[in-house]
Amino acid sequence: MSNETQQPSPEHFFETANAYQRSAALKAAVELDIFTAIGEGRADAASVAAACGASERGVRILCDYLVVIGFLTKEGGRYGLTRDSAVFLDRRSPAYMGGTLEFLLSPTLMSGFEDLAAAVRRGGTVVPDGGTVSEENPVWVKFARAMAPMMVPAALEIARLAGGPAGRRLKVLDIAAGHGVFGVTIARQNPSAEVVALDWPAVLEVARENAEAAGVSDRWSAIEGDAFAADFGSGYDVILLTNFLHHFDPPTCETLLRKVRAALADGGVAVTLEFVPNEDRVSPPIPAAFSLMMLGGTPGGDAYTYPELERMFSNAGFSRSELHRLPASPQTLVVSHK
Amino acid sequence: MSNETQQPSPEHFFETANAYQRSAALKAAVELDIFTAIGEGRADAASVAAACGASERGVRILCDYLVVIGFLTKEGGRYGLTRDSAVFLDRRSPAYMGGTLEFLLSPTLMSGFEDLAAAVRRGGTVVPDGGTVSEENPVWVKFARAMAPMMVPAALEIARLAGGPAGRRLKVLDIAAGHGVFGVTIARQNPSAEVVALDWPAVLEVARENAEAAGVSDRWSAIEGDAFAADFGSGYDVILLTNFLHHFDPPTCETLLRKVRAALADGGVAVTLEFVPNEDRVSPPIPAAFSLMMLGGTPGGDAYTYPELERMFSNAGFSRSELHRLPASPQTLVVSHK
Repeated sequence: MSNETQQPSPEHFFETANAYQRSAALKAAVELDIFTAIGEGRADAASVAAACGASERGVRILCDYLVVIGFLTKEGGRYGLTRDSAVFLDRRSPAYMGGTLEFLLSPTLMSGFEDLAAAVRRGGTVVPDGGTVSEENPVWVKFARAMAPMMVPAALEIARLAGGPAGRRLKVLDIAAGHGVFGVTIARQNPSAEVVALDWPAVLEVARENAEAAGVSDRWSAIEGDAFAADFGSGYDVILLTNFLHHFDPPTCETLLRKVRAALADGGVAVTLEFVPNEDRVSPPIPAAFSLMMLGGTPGGDAYTYPELERMFSNAGFSRSELHRLPASPQTLVVSHK
Repeated sequence: MSNETQQPSPEHFFETANAYQRSAALKAAVELDIFTAIGEGRADAASVAAACGASERGVRILCDYLVVIGFLTKEGGRYGLTRDSAVFLDRRSPAYMGGTLEFLLSPTLMSGFEDLAAAVRRGGTVVPDGGTVSEENPVWVKFARAMAPMMVPAALEIARLAGGPAGRRLKVLDIAAGHGVFGVTIARQNPSAEVVALDWPAVLEVARENAEAAGVSDRWSAIEGDAFAADFGSGYDVILLTNFLHHFDPPTCETLLRKVRAALADGGVAVTLEFVPNEDRVSPPIPAAFSLMMLGGTPGGDAYTYPELERMFSNAGFSRSELHRLPASPQTLVVSHK
C-alpha cells in the first residue's frame, strides 16, 4: 500500500497486477538452483549462469528481480543470499523447501485461479469434478512428495502435544495422511505408538516410503480409500486431521467429525492442523489469504476461524477443544476431546 | 522480507509462491466491478454480491483477500475503498485504470512467464516468433485500447516539455503510437502542432479514434507499418519513442535511433519514455522489475539505465541527452537533441 499521506499512486495496483511474475521468478530460480549456486559462493551473473546452465543475461535479470522482491542481496554488483533464502532455498540446507513449489505451483492448484471471477460468481471452484478434492486427484501424490519438509515443525509439535511420553501405548489414526510425516513423527518419538495412515493408494505409497525411511514400518499400517467412505476401525487414542477440514463446508466437516469421534477410545483426542484466521477474517495475512485458495480450488472449503472449528467439533459431540498456536508457523493446532 | 533479527521464517517464500493469486484476485474484482459497488456505498458481502451478480460467499472471501493485500479496508465487518482504490479502481473515477488489466494480464503477456526458467536459460523469450514483438501481434491493439488511461500524466508532461508554446508550428512523429495519446495530447495543447502516428494498421484504428475524440484529426495523419521498415518522411521537430526501446537489444535500438535522427529537422529532439532503473539495476522497484517482463516476453529487450540510453543515443549521432523524472509515475523521460 502506498502511504496514504502521499499523492494517489497506481504503483500498488501495477505491482499487484504483475504479482504473478513473482511466483514465476521464484519457481524459475528454484528450478535452475540459483540459490544453491549463490550459497556456494558464486556472486556474479556469469559464474551463477555457468553453474546453472543458463545464459548470463537471463541470470542477471532474474537475480536483479530476486533482489527487488527480497530473496537476494546485491552489494557492489555481487549477489548474496538473504538469511531466509540461505535457510529455505539453498538445496544444501536441512530446511530446504524449494521442492514444495512442485505442489504449490502445480497446474492443478493454479488452474483454480484462471477464471477466479467465475468462482466468485458461483461461490466455489469452477474446475471440473470439484477441483482439488476430486477422487484420487494425482495432485495429492505431488503434495505428499513435495510438502513434507514444510510440515516438520508442526509434526514435532503435534508429537510433543499428543504423542504421549515415550513408552506409553498409543493407537494413532492419520486421516488423509499424505506424506505420512505427522503419524511417522509420533511413531519415531514414541516407540510404543502404532500408526494407521489413511489415504488413496497412490498417496499411501509415499507415506509408506517415509515410514520405512524412519524405521517405524513395523508399527505402521494403512487403510486405503476415502476418509468419508473408509472403515476407520476403532479404539484410537489420537486421530490426526491435518490440513483436511479446510477442503469442505461445515456440514461435511461435521459429518466426518462424528465418524472421527466414534472411532476414538474414551479419553481420545482429535488433533487438527489448520490455517486459522482471526475472527476479522483478514489477519494474520497467511491464514486469512488461505481462504481464497479454497474458493479457487474447492466447491465449499474455507479457512475456518477458531470459533467455527470449535462449533463443528461441539456439534459433532466432542466435549471441548483447545487452541495451540504453533511458533514459527502460519498454522494452528486444535486439540478436541471426545 | 521477514525481519532479519527474528527467527528464520518461510512466510515470505510462501507468500511469493502464491503471489499469482494476487493478480488473479485483482483481475476478478475488476471484472466483477467490486470496487465500484463498494465505492457506491455497499459495505457488506451480501449487498456487494447482489450488485455484482455474484455469490455472497465468493464475494466475502474475495473482499477479505483484497483487505489482506491492501486494496480494501474492513472495519466492524464493513468493507470500504482505500484512497488509491477509490482513485484508480472505482469505474466512476476519471483516473480509473481497471481496464489496463485487459493488457497487463492478457494471455499473450502472461505466456512469457509459463516457463521462465527456459527464458533464463536462453536469455530471452521462449514464446514463438519473438513473443510480444512478433509482427502485427494483436496484443498491441489490446494495449492501445487498455493502456491510454495510465499514460495521461506522462503525456501531459511530454506536451509541456516538447510540445512548444501554443501556436508554435511543430511537426511530430509518434513512433509505435499505440493509443496515440502522446501525440494527440501535444496536438490538443498546441493548435499549430501536426502529428504523424506510426503503427500497425489495426493499432492505428484505435489512435485514429482517439485523435477524432480529441478533435485533432485535421492535424493528425498516419503511417502504417513497422518502425524499422517504414519511411518516416523528414523534417520532424519532435519524434516520440514511448515505451518502445525496451523491446529491443542495444544494437537494434541504435539502428532505429540513427533512422530517427535522420528524420529530425535541425534542432529537433527525440523524446523517450521508459522504465529507467538506477545503475544498481535493483531500484526503484517498478523500473527495476520491468526488466523481467522483457526477459519473459521479448528476445532481447531490457529496462535500460540512463547511462545505457545516453550511450545508445550518442552512438546514433545525437549531440546530447537530458533526463527528466516524472512526478507520480514509475517512468522517466529522456530528451535527446539532434
